[in-house]
Amino acid sequence: MFLPRIVKRMSPLLGSRMSLNACRFASTDLVRTEVDDKTGIAVVTMNRKPVNSLNLELLRELSSALDAVEKNKSRGMILASSLDTVFSAGLDITEMYKPDQARLKDFWTTLQEVWLKLFGSGFPTAAAINGHAPAGGCLLAMSCEYRVMRPNLTIGLNETQLGIVAPSWFMSTMENILPRREVELALTLGKMFSTEKAHEIGLVDEIVDTKEEALAKCTEFIQLFARVPREARALTKQSFRREALQKLDRDQDLQMFIYLVNQPQVQKGLGLYFESLKKK
Amino acid sequence: MFLPRIVKRMSPLLGSRMSLNACRFASTDLVRTEVDDKTGIAVVTMNRKPVNSLNLELLRELSSALDAVEKNKSRGMILASSLDTVFSAGLDITEMYKPDQARLKDFWTTLQEVWLKLFGSGFPTAAAINGHAPAGGCLLAMSCEYRVMRPNLTIGLNETQLGIVAPSWFMSTMENILPRREVELALTLGKMFSTEKAHEIGLVDEIVDTKEEALAKCTEFIQLFARVPREARALTKQSFRREALQKLDRDQDLQMFIYLVNQPQVQKGLGLYFESLKKK
Amino acid sequence: MFLPRIVKRMSPLLGSRMSLNACRFASTDLVRTEVDDKTGIAVVTMNRKPVNSLNLELLRELSSALDAVEKNKSRGMILASSLDTVFSAGLDITEMYKPDQARLKDFWTTLQEVWLKLFGSGFPTAAAINGHAPAGGCLLAMSCEYRVMRPNLTIGLNETQLGIVAPSWFMSTMENILPRREVELALTLGKMFSTEKAHEIGLVDEIVDTKEEALAKCTEFIQLFARVPREARALTKQSFRREALQKLDRDQDLQMFIYLVNQPQVQKGLGLYFESLKKK
Repeated sequence: MFLPRIVKRMSPLLGSRMSLNACRFASTDLVRTEVDDKTGIAVVTMNRKPVNSLNLELLRELSSALDAVEKNKSRGMILASSLDTVFSAGLDITEMYKPDQARLKDFWTTLQEVWLKLFGSGFPTAAAINGHAPAGGCLLAMSCEYRVMRPNLTIGLNETQLGIVAPSWFMSTMENILPRREVELALTLGKMFSTEKAHEIGLVDEIVDTKEEALAKCTEFIQLFARVPREARALTKQSFRREALQKLDRDQDLQMFIYLVNQPQVQKGLGLYFESLKKK
Repeated sequence: MFLPRIVKRMSPLLGSRMSLNACRFASTDLVRTEVDDKTGIAVVTMNRKPVNSLNLELLRELSSALDAVEKNKSRGMILASSLDTVFSAGLDITEMYKPDQARLKDFWTTLQEVWLKLFGSGFPTAAAINGHAPAGGCLLAMSCEYRVMRPNLTIGLNETQLGIVAPSWFMSTMENILPRREVELALTLGKMFSTEKAHEIGLVDEIVDTKEEALAKCTEFIQLFARVPREARALTKQSFRREALQKLDRDQDLQMFIYLVNQPQVQKGLGLYFESLKKK
Repeated sequence: MFLPRIVKRMSPLLGSRMSLNACRFASTDLVRTEVDDKTGIAVVTMNRKPVNSLNLELLRELSSALDAVEKNKSRGMILASSLDTVFSAGLDITEMYKPDQARLKDFWTTLQEVWLKLFGSGFPTAAAINGHAPAGGCLLAMSCEYRVMRPNLTIGLNETQLGIVAPSWFMSTMENILPRREVELALTLGKMFSTEKAHEIGLVDEIVDTKEEALAKCTEFIQLFARVPREARALTKQSFRREALQKLDRDQDLQMFIYLVNQPQVQKGLGLYFESLKKK
């Protein structure tokens, strides 16, 4: 199994001395996992230029990183991006446009896995949203327990704008945070919220100016659980999220995705979108 | 099948030129459907004096109107009333008081159909609430995706006040809009909210002074979806509302209704209410 | 069957003259039930010093009191505490620490019963929270339809802080009042809210200075239903709460509880907590 390297290194933000952790984990360029010696919190940083679009490889690395955080008994996990203006642009369209069917299946299955592990994790999670977070990027951020975002960015499930339908578990994830009324409007409009509007409705918990501050606020949140017994907290969270987790029928969801992606009109739409991206 | 006439006519409000649409639809006095040439939005107006109480015939016309809007691929639908002070007074009590059993069954089945089509519609919907909207009137308004209301009116599910229980799908419809806490209080009290209070808690989205402004605001809302791909929007809405839609077990719900209506104490209560209405 | 004495007596608060009610109900020191002659509202007062911790006997009395209120066709019920600073400290740890297995089973089954009767009651309920209400105390208060609390107290489901997991029906009960977002944070943190914060987020409906005022406000709330037909109100409430009520699989929940309590680490944790309480 291919697992990310757990690198412990100096964290200027927290002022703590961190040493390189001897570990069995394989190195990867797509996802960096660093554990702060002092806080025991793992920072998982997506690093796939130019926009952290979620392809099969990035999703596999995220899945492995989540396993490692779990195995490593970290005190919690912060999800971040190495990029200046993008948290994650969401699913990589190249995975869906004129797809290889076996890889397409693998791609979606791995996305499901990442969500099941992240949304269903026992350890505390927070997202340092230091860049735009549309669609799948928003899903990852929403799957965490807390969200800190920089100003003047956008976040949202904008699938309908692209002519596709957000799977029901994307919806459940948003419903775990926002009132149904807000979720329905957000989803039918495919609305991208500004940081400020997202904060106003509760999609984002705090706004800060820099990535460093975002990491610090995420750390603060996770440290709220410092004295909460770990096992009880994990079971409580998982019990609370169980219904949403169990609602995902993986087989049925996979078949639906495969069917939809292969529709000629969806392929046509992706093609047009793909062309428009190339021109940028 | 008996379908309402689709009349396209001049809309002074929107300033658009509308021509009479050649169509196959039969005319009806109870429900008028007009489609704005420019916006492609259908305005479905209930017109059963004195209070748009929902009897079998009005419900059938509404059901047909919804079919026509769907078939006609309108950009959206606005539900309104032709009356000055009443949106709809709710279910027509004469259908339930000393009822013909076959018609009673037909009546309830048609109400279910109207709700399934309206709440579950793919096209965007908005309610121009230009008059009071108790009980079934409130249900129709809540089944839409947006509500604009004139001041100094009332809206609510006041069934308990009348000694009856709102069916669980009335409750689900309210829960699609309001927090559970508000819904429980509203339902157990059978509370009628003023326009202002309804707006405050989120049962109504906007308050405007005239019916024309209400129609204009509803149009604005529907036009938010102008650039959202139609099919993706429809499937997203239906996916989001699926659980509520599927919770309605039509057979069981019908049997429950028939059973309750035929209870002697319910008949007695309806009789008293019926008498009090006559005196007005 | 062991039922609490229904005592009707002078209520200085309400200024109504109350007479002793001849009744079949057995007397109990742990729970006092008084019915106001004028309002027809029963005040059920927990009275197990020093902190109203819920042991098998207190739960049995509460269960019987709820039966009596139902049987007696009271207009509603107010749940209160006879103690100055504690509403209820929650489950009695002595029931769970080194437990007799038969009694442990009885204990949990009775707690389930109390919740099913209180949360699922047809009559209106309100909690006069005149003291701290952690864990099981919070559950009782949340199972009511309205909460009035004195300032500078605390309320919350703090189970995780104690290393245990609140059962899913505790969670459902909180979700009946608060947005999911608030519930998740409250549960994973095991957060105890101040009266003021609880009021701010909606966990408490009103803050008043004295127990008398709390009882008066609870009475006011229940009297809102004075003109609402009793049967329709009861069925409406029960229909609205049905899903949460039905989600409790009593057998499975009991087995889970028995299993967890008997875990060595839970016993160890309870032992430590038990010792810390003794020292106070």
